[in-house]
Amino acid sequence: MSKEGHFSDRMTARIQSIESRLVVGIDPRLDCLPDGIEADDPEQALTHLGVGVIEAVAGLAAAVKPQVAFFERWGWRGWKALETVCRSASEHGIPVILDAKRGDIGSTAEAYAEALLGDEPGTLGPYVDALTVNPYLGSDSLEPFFCRVRDGGRGVFVLARTSNPGGGEFQKRPGDEIPEEIIQVREAAPGSFLLIPGIGAQGGSIGDIAGAFDGQGLGALVNSSRGIVQAFEKQPDRPWQEVVQEAAKESRDALEGVIWA
Amino acid sequence: MSKEGHFSDRMTARIQSIESRLVVGIDPRLDCLPDGIEADDPEQALTHLGVGVIEAVAGLAAAVKPQVAFFERWGWRGWKALETVCRSASEHGIPVILDAKRGDIGSTAEAYAEALLGDEPGTLGPYVDALTVNPYLGSDSLEPFFCRVRDGGRGVFVLARTSNPGGGEFQKRPGDEIPEEIIQVREAAPGSFLLIPGIGAQGGSIGDIAGAFDGQGLGALVNSSRGIVQAFEKQPDRPWQEVVQEAAKESRDALEGVIWA
Repeated sequence: MSKEGHFSDRMTARIQSIESRLVVGIDPRLDCLPDGIEADDPEQALTHLGVGVIEAVAGLAAAVKPQVAFFERWGWRGWKALETVCRSASEHGIPVILDAKRGDIGSTAEAYAEALLGDEPGTLGPYVDALTVNPYLGSDSLEPFFCRVRDGGRGVFVLARTSNPGGGEFQKRPGDEIPEEIIQVREAAPGSFLLIPGIGAQGGSIGDIAGAFDGQGLGALVNSSRGIVQAFEKQPDRPWQEVVQEAAKESRDALEGVIWA
Repeated sequence: MSKEGHFSDRMTARIQSIESRLVVGIDPRLDCLPDGIEADDPEQALTHLGVGVIEAVAGLAAAVKPQVAFFERWGWRGWKALETVCRSASEHGIPVILDAKRGDIGSTAEAYAEALLGDEPGTLGPYVDALTVNPYLGSDSLEPFFCRVRDGGRGVFVLARTSNPGGGEFQKRPGDEIPEEIIQVREAAPGSFLLIPGIGAQGGSIGDIAGAFDGQGLGALVNSSRGIVQAFEKQPDRPWQEVVQEAAKESRDALEGVIWA
């Protein structure tokens, strides 16, 4: 049940086929639901919203990025919904980048890798194409995840740099600035995809990220979460999936404009 | 439903009442089960083993430390078992230190804090006394967890230093050595508990950790996982819980010997 080929190759094919570098982050909140989805059954609400977003963005998103925390927030019922959402994306042919930022050592890291990038029925693994991981415990802690890249056709995004106020405490050297850092990482890892979070609600501007792409407009994916998944809040009178689809299309087009400018 | 008082005060009272600084790590593996527990239903096997360990060590463990990865490994069914295991520890009056090493920013960190240190029925939160977190994303990423320390009576263990080969890549300065680092941290945080992993299978020696304790033999907890939870492997003919209990008693006594040496 390993995925066929390399994650980067599958991603490149997907980007070229639907002409999109947009990743739609799925961060469902039960205090922000469209009309017709009730919060009283968390599993059902998370599933309904998550699957609904996937249907809406299926032709527009290079990948979807479910954020585990917003499912884990509701215990095992949330995890059950997360499995359904990842399976739905997989059935729609959309690559799933699971945002879990896991990191541990030895057999514990191996257990996370098996849970989230493995092939076991009854886990998320079979439906996940790539995983975000945290490198604080060092290179050897990432090895169980990298094994799934070499032998399982999966992708791993290693958390490098975040733009929050404390982001530089462990992640940067004095004087480093994010736009230049992106260009340095781009040069250091020419064959790899970079995952750039946060156009929209997280405050990143589209112009800042042009340096993440290579000459072919490849090698980077750009995430938007709340700007798409919560778009219905601003137009409560329209069908919510239509509004989400429109927001995804706008972000997709804006990104394509940067690439081909 | 917040916990009463401060985590450190509850921990101190527990240590003094049962005369133990031992944390029993619960890392259940379905390829290592005692006779009488079948692996074919993961939820049942994890629950049976986890609750069985808790019954065995209830009078000997200062706290138990379930490792989330070994439950998450089995998807939402594993998470359901994890909830049962944490509830069981709570019912036995044993503090639960949940080993999850979560770390993220903003509303995502808030969702993890609510999931794992919150009060919501149907989540782990009500049964968890303290949580391990990963600091790579910086101080502000830890704030949602620290809120639960100030206002919810919970504890947070911030991952600082691990002894794996790559552990020093982000965690140390040139020349730092772990035994001295422990003493420095002990001095820098005189009112806090340190969680020292890995006597037994992880290779730490009991003598190295004496510097983690303060003059009253308080301020540190020492974890053993496989050495206790898998002790039955070496004596397959005896009742497994009896063997686990005996292993816990030996580790507890060895630790007390170091403190009062």
